[in-house]
Amino acid sequence: MNIGIVFYFLGWVLGIEGILMILPCVVALIYQEPSGFYFLGVALFCGISGWLLAHKKLKSTVFYAKEGFVAVSLSWIVLSFFGALPFFLSGEIPLLEDALFEVISGFTTTGASVLSDVEALSRCMLMWRSFTHWIGGMGVLVFILAVLPLAGGYNIHIMRAESPGPSVGKLVPRVRTTAKILYLIYLFITVVQIILLLFTGMPLFDSMAMSFGTAGTGGFGIVNSSCGDYTSLQQWIFTIFMILFGVNFNVYYLFLIRKPKDALRCEEMRGYLGIILVSTLLITWNIRGMFPDILTALKHAAFQVGSIITTTGYSTTDFDLWPGFSRTILVCLMFIGACAGSTGGGIKVSRIAIAVKTVNKELSSLIHPRNVKVLKYEGKAIEHNVLRSINTYLVAYILIFTVSLLLISLDNFDLTTNFTAIAATLNNIGPGLSKVGPTCNFGIFSPLNKYILMFDMLAGRLELFPMLLLFAPRTWMRE
Amino acid sequence: MNIGIVFYFLGWVLGIEGILMILPCVVALIYQEPSGFYFLGVALFCGISGWLLAHKKLKSTVFYAKEGFVAVSLSWIVLSFFGALPFFLSGEIPLLEDALFEVISGFTTTGASVLSDVEALSRCMLMWRSFTHWIGGMGVLVFILAVLPLAGGYNIHIMRAESPGPSVGKLVPRVRTTAKILYLIYLFITVVQIILLLFTGMPLFDSMAMSFGTAGTGGFGIVNSSCGDYTSLQQWIFTIFMILFGVNFNVYYLFLIRKPKDALRCEEMRGYLGIILVSTLLITWNIRGMFPDILTALKHAAFQVGSIITTTGYSTTDFDLWPGFSRTILVCLMFIGACAGSTGGGIKVSRIAIAVKTVNKELSSLIHPRNVKVLKYEGKAIEHNVLRSINTYLVAYILIFTVSLLLISLDNFDLTTNFTAIAATLNNIGPGLSKVGPTCNFGIFSPLNKYILMFDMLAGRLELFPMLLLFAPRTWMRE
Repeated sequence: MNIGIVFYFLGWVLGIEGILMILPCVVALIYQEPSGFYFLGVALFCGISGWLLAHKKLKSTVFYAKEGFVAVSLSWIVLSFFGALPFFLSGEIPLLEDALFEVISGFTTTGASVLSDVEALSRCMLMWRSFTHWIGGMGVLVFILAVLPLAGGYNIHIMRAESPGPSVGKLVPRVRTTAKILYLIYLFITVVQIILLLFTGMPLFDSMAMSFGTAGTGGFGIVNSSCGDYTSLQQWIFTIFMILFGVNFNVYYLFLIRKPKDALRCEEMRGYLGIILVSTLLITWNIRGMFPDILTALKHAAFQVGSIITTTGYSTTDFDLWPGFSRTILVCLMFIGACAGSTGGGIKVSRIAIAVKTVNKELSSLIHPRNVKVLKYEGKAIEHNVLRSINTYLVAYILIFTVSLLLISLDNFDLTTNFTAIAATLNNIGPGLSKVGPTCNFGIFSPLNKYILMFDMLAGRLELFPMLLLFAPRTWMRE
Repeated sequence: MNIGIVFYFLGWVLGIEGILMILPCVVALIYQEPSGFYFLGVALFCGISGWLLAHKKLKSTVFYAKEGFVAVSLSWIVLSFFGALPFFLSGEIPLLEDALFEVISGFTTTGASVLSDVEALSRCMLMWRSFTHWIGGMGVLVFILAVLPLAGGYNIHIMRAESPGPSVGKLVPRVRTTAKILYLIYLFITVVQIILLLFTGMPLFDSMAMSFGTAGTGGFGIVNSSCGDYTSLQQWIFTIFMILFGVNFNVYYLFLIRKPKDALRCEEMRGYLGIILVSTLLITWNIRGMFPDILTALKHAAFQVGSIITTTGYSTTDFDLWPGFSRTILVCLMFIGACAGSTGGGIKVSRIAIAVKTVNKELSSLIHPRNVKVLKYEGKAIEHNVLRSINTYLVAYILIFTVSLLLISLDNFDLTTNFTAIAATLNNIGPGLSKVGPTCNFGIFSPLNKYILMFDMLAGRLELFPMLLLFAPRTWMRE
């Protein structure tokens, strides 16, 4: 293990976190909030310690998948720890585990909260809380790759560990350029959303914070009613942008380089939009009696479907009160998740589509044993190692899910609460059902269980293996 | 498709069902029950129609996997339909869908009942109900293979379709001999259990019916309290025999041919017993406060663990009242299931063990990319196609589970009821939690949902693919 390069990366992560904390400092300055000093203090500390770790020249740039995974998972833990400090030090979230939970939930774009009253937070804290979604959405290390002049091909290991989805599509041969393009697309769509919200009359603070939450598919709101009190127009804007941020970013790149035909042919995007359409229509039909007219039902159905499948977690209504069929559809969407290569979480549409194709192929081979059928996705044959990694992912997913479920069931809540709490954290969604429904919060769990849910959020965001490796003794053994 | 051979098999199945119905006829004779005439009538009809279908010489014995799968799934449907007729015609179960549900639940060894008062059934009906477990436990077609002098190697396709587990271990080169040995072991252990129960003072009727339910890992009781009113000694006998019937029958064969060392080295059996031990201890500790002494707690824990992991479904106490941790362990055991090559259902210990090993291998290969590790199970390297079929099975399992969950959620029960109802039927267990808990029954569901649960029971018993194939249009297309 080349521990030097891991520390080097941690240094960069700390330095960047220090710089990013300037935003809440500015907000504190504008709103004259004394809690801004905590951000200033932590930012300075991060900046200095980051410089100490990263200014030295590296002895060795040997860098394998193992170092990549460890660097990524440790970075996210360090990032979360220092990100949580202002909440804890200022006393606005009095318990350390609660502050950590909130910030991990932010960076992993989960949006699950332990707070029963978010309106009690100061403005700078609210902005930082939403900003963590935006930072975590695309990934901090991808950002570092975009700015860091690292030579060699090894940085793909970092990108692979941090990017959602079964396989990393490098848009262009150079990782650094890919990372830059991704961040520019991300920034651009976010800015468009902020401007549109400003046009509807939303204040700048709200537009920014809520757009950060949408872009990262996070879900932290800035008022207790989440999105329930916004106008219908604003809610539709959220619906559309949530869905947009759940699309594979390759599609936008294809539009950017003027290949709209290729973009529209994207099989994953079509599947994703198809699932959204069908689910929205089914739920609209199922809940039509609960709302004054069908359009209102459609609005709420589309919003909740977009929010859950992209794993954002905003809500306009308490969907825990919806009929069983609608709630079951939402639970299924929790697992499906968004497209690979988007900012959304969950298992991802492409993984599920490929898994379904393997079953179909098995059926075919039982009917016609001598026909050899090649599995194709996005017009290309699926390589054997992609199939294997999808299967391993699904098994690891089920294992983490089961162990988490067993452990948190020690708190003795009902099965629906426990099941959807794990589903909501491991898939980085936010709200679940029953005692963790959209009007409730995760403060009910014991400290031990909060740490388990934090692990699940990180594991879900980093596609399981980086976090599992961190706990495998072999990772730390000398070769 | 060689439809001739499929009808030939169906004829044999009908004929054998006619013969098997002699048992309830005898019971009716002893207890002087007029409802025995329904069995006599159906038995005669089955016998005659079976003879008509199977007495002709076959034009072609061409027989591929497809014919095997279709023959197996159609056989089970035909078997269930005629098996349900006495219940329906006698009016003891007035609705056809209920009679079908009860008998499919019997043959698939599920043990889920739609009846709120089983004691109201006549004795011959009760005996037939329990006997279906015994028949379904080892499989009717395996029985036919044992008695039918079919030449050629094609009958392995039948055995593969009907036998539980990822791969069929032929004990001896000839399928027919393997089938005979399996049935003899099965019969022998059943008789031992009947004799032991008779020694404890249980009447012959009860001993036979309850042993049939244990042997097939079924779970239909003959009194409303399931096993709650039996003595502690009798309950321990049930516990031990349930666990014995969940062991891979290869282990018994190895004992039989005096290779006890090989038998004890069986990795799957060790895993299975280990899971039982750990779960029993954890649950005993968790429920110790609910019972007067720790031994009573241990007895109930061991019974329920044995009953659920082997997918039998007997109960000595209402485990739906147990704390969340214990209930969650039981839910996990529902999915794990028994050993492959036993009469138990579920995903099977070997499938899960192999799946876990693939995750472990993936972690190793991330740490040491150049080390190629060979996956081993039972001392042998796992072949690629076994791995693939396990993965396909898991995906198909999740798909059937999800679609069933969506469909039955239209009945608007709580998520726990719906989730455990599917888990209990797809894994062939019997009781679930909440509204389908051990003191409740499946009569609450709408007719449509009962048919969905029947499909799940059949799919679970036949390891998914035969039932899926039945609904694939390509199966019925001309080549």
